[in-house]
Amino acid sequence: MKYVNFEDTGDTISDEFFMKEALKEAHKALAGDEVPIGAVIVHGGRIIGRGHNLTERLNDVTAHAEMQAFTAAANYIGGKYLVGCTLYVTVEPCVMCAGAAYWTQISRIVFGAKDPKRGFSLFGSGLLHPKTTVINGILGEECAALVTSFFRNKRTE
Amino acid sequence: MKYVNFEDTGDTISDEFFMKEALKEAHKALAGDEVPIGAVIVHGGRIIGRGHNLTERLNDVTAHAEMQAFTAAANYIGGKYLVGCTLYVTVEPCVMCAGAAYWTQISRIVFGAKDPKRGFSLFGSGLLHPKTTVINGILGEECAALVTSFFRNKRTE
Repeated sequence: MKYVNFEDTGDTISDEFFMKEALKEAHKALAGDEVPIGAVIVHGGRIIGRGHNLTERLNDVTAHAEMQAFTAAANYIGGKYLVGCTLYVTVEPCVMCAGAAYWTQISRIVFGAKDPKRGFSLFGSGLLHPKTTVINGILGEECAALVTSFFRNKRTE
Repeated sequence: MKYVNFEDTGDTISDEFFMKEALKEAHKALAGDEVPIGAVIVHGGRIIGRGHNLTERLNDVTAHAEMQAFTAAANYIGGKYLVGCTLYVTVEPCVMCAGAAYWTQISRIVFGAKDPKRGFSLFGSGLLHPKTTVINGILGEECAALVTSFFRNKRTE
């Protein structure tokens, strides 16, 4: 378990705490029969953006959990840069979402499960902003199991 | 000048024609003091989606011309895959937009000017879908000049 110190609040909150919030978002996606991936964006110990995958409902490939969380957080802040923020997402961001993360200059990305098919890390670290640090494996098994079980059920429907 | 044959219409329309439409979108961005990049998506000789950069107005890094054009085209079609479509964009797509293009499975990408800083091709061809073909340099000088002039004016403001 990794702990995060927030300078402006003095709080010490674990990455697991916020990953559980991202998992709540993933369950909202699951309830809508979407690939169950969820995300939250945190600044100073507070969640300032949430999102879950809505690609089916919106008929829109850009409606990934992270993209919606970026948009929500930027809207909350009133500015498009997320320096000092952390993205928590249940599955490794894809190329599109890593590319969006680059533009936000977000400080940290914490993800649960690796995506061996389309995870950004397949393409090296250059997709992200050089100032972005990455942690993975937080509640990784739970995050992965949610997606694996979703696709297993799809195949037997 | 490259010509495109559209099986379902029999029309032969040049890539320049649609790049001029993308340039019209770029000029809309310029009028809003946005980095002047524009895009259209074409299917069967018809424009089915348009977009121009709105990152400043929307305070949202995801509001690139291509992303909005993808969303608009998917909305028009009523489905999220853009097989058989061509994206015309005045500047080479970034990593985010290339990642989105991958998910759409779009058949062709035609862009004007290269982006030597964040163009997707800096990261090899793996970011795009293997079935996507790419053409560049269509009205490239005009597309590049629009962006260069925008940033030159910004520096002297």
